[in-house]
Amino acid sequence: MFGRLLARRASLQQDSSLKDVLIHEPGVISFAGGLPDPEAFDMSRIEEITRRVSGHSDAWQYVETEGYPPLREAIARHMQQLGVPCDSEHILITQGSQQGLDLIAKLLIDPGDRILVEAPGYIGGLKAFENYEAQLVPVPCGTDGLDLDHLSSVPHGAKLLYTIPTFQNPTGSVLPLDKRRALLEIAADKGFLIVEDGAYHLLRYDGDEVPPIKSFDTDGRVVYLGSLSKVLVPGIRIGWIVAHPDLIQKLALLKQGTDLAGNSFGQLFAHRWLSEFGLHPPVDLYHRKRDATYQALTQKMPSNIRFDRVEGGFFFWLQLENQMDATALLLRAKAHGVSFVPGVAFGGPASTLRFSFSQVRPEDIDEGVSRLAAAIASMQQEQDFAS
Amino acid sequence: MFGRLLARRASLQQDSSLKDVLIHEPGVISFAGGLPDPEAFDMSRIEEITRRVSGHSDAWQYVETEGYPPLREAIARHMQQLGVPCDSEHILITQGSQQGLDLIAKLLIDPGDRILVEAPGYIGGLKAFENYEAQLVPVPCGTDGLDLDHLSSVPHGAKLLYTIPTFQNPTGSVLPLDKRRALLEIAADKGFLIVEDGAYHLLRYDGDEVPPIKSFDTDGRVVYLGSLSKVLVPGIRIGWIVAHPDLIQKLALLKQGTDLAGNSFGQLFAHRWLSEFGLHPPVDLYHRKRDATYQALTQKMPSNIRFDRVEGGFFFWLQLENQMDATALLLRAKAHGVSFVPGVAFGGPASTLRFSFSQVRPEDIDEGVSRLAAAIASMQQEQDFAS
Repeated sequence: MFGRLLARRASLQQDSSLKDVLIHEPGVISFAGGLPDPEAFDMSRIEEITRRVSGHSDAWQYVETEGYPPLREAIARHMQQLGVPCDSEHILITQGSQQGLDLIAKLLIDPGDRILVEAPGYIGGLKAFENYEAQLVPVPCGTDGLDLDHLSSVPHGAKLLYTIPTFQNPTGSVLPLDKRRALLEIAADKGFLIVEDGAYHLLRYDGDEVPPIKSFDTDGRVVYLGSLSKVLVPGIRIGWIVAHPDLIQKLALLKQGTDLAGNSFGQLFAHRWLSEFGLHPPVDLYHRKRDATYQALTQKMPSNIRFDRVEGGFFFWLQLENQMDATALLLRAKAHGVSFVPGVAFGGPASTLRFSFSQVRPEDIDEGVSRLAAAIASMQQEQDFAS
Repeated sequence: MFGRLLARRASLQQDSSLKDVLIHEPGVISFAGGLPDPEAFDMSRIEEITRRVSGHSDAWQYVETEGYPPLREAIARHMQQLGVPCDSEHILITQGSQQGLDLIAKLLIDPGDRILVEAPGYIGGLKAFENYEAQLVPVPCGTDGLDLDHLSSVPHGAKLLYTIPTFQNPTGSVLPLDKRRALLEIAADKGFLIVEDGAYHLLRYDGDEVPPIKSFDTDGRVVYLGSLSKVLVPGIRIGWIVAHPDLIQKLALLKQGTDLAGNSFGQLFAHRWLSEFGLHPPVDLYHRKRDATYQALTQKMPSNIRFDRVEGGFFFWLQLENQMDATALLLRAKAHGVSFVPGVAFGGPASTLRFSFSQVRPEDIDEGVSRLAAAIASMQQEQDFAS
């Protein structure tokens, strides 16, 4: 009996999912998943905080829809440290930053609304807006982030822009300071809202910090999304929205009908963690992996494969020769025992791929890059032979 | 700048929220909240399970969007015990049953679609559908559940019916066995889906068990929503949907863009709990409270206040004299040190109220009912004087 009911959602197709990246193929070194490394989880501290929180019945009862009040305060203080003036009434605790995207889309999107998105861009962000039948308008995103000339040329009337300005997923790019200010001016001129996803903001390994766009926002034009998933642990699903209190209040009312409230245990855990230890992401581990990956890529990739050294985050973005298709390469790479995500999955060109070092074991990085180089060489030979 | 953007959601108004019931007014005995009693949380077992789960890094990493596979299997076995043939591919783990409602609405509802709802009915359910701009069509719900004669008379074309057939919120009513079968026939005739919310199903204190509607379903017409919130703890936010695998797959794809995945800790906790202890809700505690509340109501309420003895769940439903307004009574009741939720909040008549015994301390029940009786007597006297 579902045929008729489900017809309007026929566009929902199985594509990449968490299942694909959570299941490890034996013998394959995977640079595909953008998951945090469980080695980065400080298990002794986790068990200690868990033990302390688990004895409080508040950790097991319902929590306020807006979030556990002490956690909202702690997050507001954290945002102040990033240069964002705010207090707890500017904060809504969400089920990961993905729920932040969902609630914003639910509140603001009517079917057919135009939403500006990065191309290539984060798949989950696109899905959140597609779920509400938005029309996605791609804006090119290069090595220094969004193409503002292109953005200036899009017609008025887009409702919002979704961007990851720092260590973007999938390209690893950072929008420079001057472009952040210019972006805010374009948004004011065109009348769209900026949804700034800061999931990777704290994962900087070198270079100068660039403040969030939200820190320059004077009229509530920027909605900031934060998350503990990449910098503490994802399994508690703690994210947050920073926005004008009027907007927070509306989003909280929508959240009531969406999931009633977040998980209390995770909120008390996060609050206790921030109180005891502050928020100090495991940058050393990822720094070493970034270095090892960059060194291996520099040594082993043929000169016609382009990539930039990233200063943080989880990803390198590789551009193959134009005639080489990354999806075809992936099949060959898996046969060589290495995997990645083709750039087309993010709306990028066919010749690009995302190479994530976050979850690869350090001792596998060099071998994984060698396997990729072998797969590329094998494909190159075949193409040369065919031409 | 939010005026224009938020205009279409002007209907979102602050009304009752979790905050209201989580904050205790000093000196007021509250029969308002429908929360589980923290006294029902078996803290020593909770701490034991927490300790065992917290050492596994899987509890802190992302989990599959569909849910932690062993938990899906455990829930499928639980549903089999309730007479519902299913396996894990029929199960989607959700962020409480509220997210089940949200995902179903997100998948199936177009603005203006007609949704059949119980009147009075659960506010959260109504909100989930209102968020997608459904048109709610109330179907009267009395002491033996939905009015099927009324339901038979509604025009064809409604997309689904949302019902809590067992220990309904707010009336506490149970739809009898023969009416469950008849309801399925009406649904088949009219072509609508049944969304059956079983949140209170296991909380039976006496009387004969009535199987879920889902257990009679042969063509995938019933979508069942389950939850651990009332029978274990709400703070882990574990609910589930039982439906045809095709529907589960679509809902999981929507969930990817909604919150990516549930909280892993809660899912591992729930799985470990079910494996170790099974699912045995704290019925003794609530049974005693039901008895104490019923006894006090029987002894202290004036004869013109009508209520039925409920066999389970959290709620009594009180019908005042027609000319007495429960919202006005609430103001007076609070002055007497007792509170409840007026029936109008659930779409019920002005002269009704929901009287929840779930979270009241046993030693306060008698005093609370006495205060309500005093408030009613005081209001009655005033009305007699005025007339």
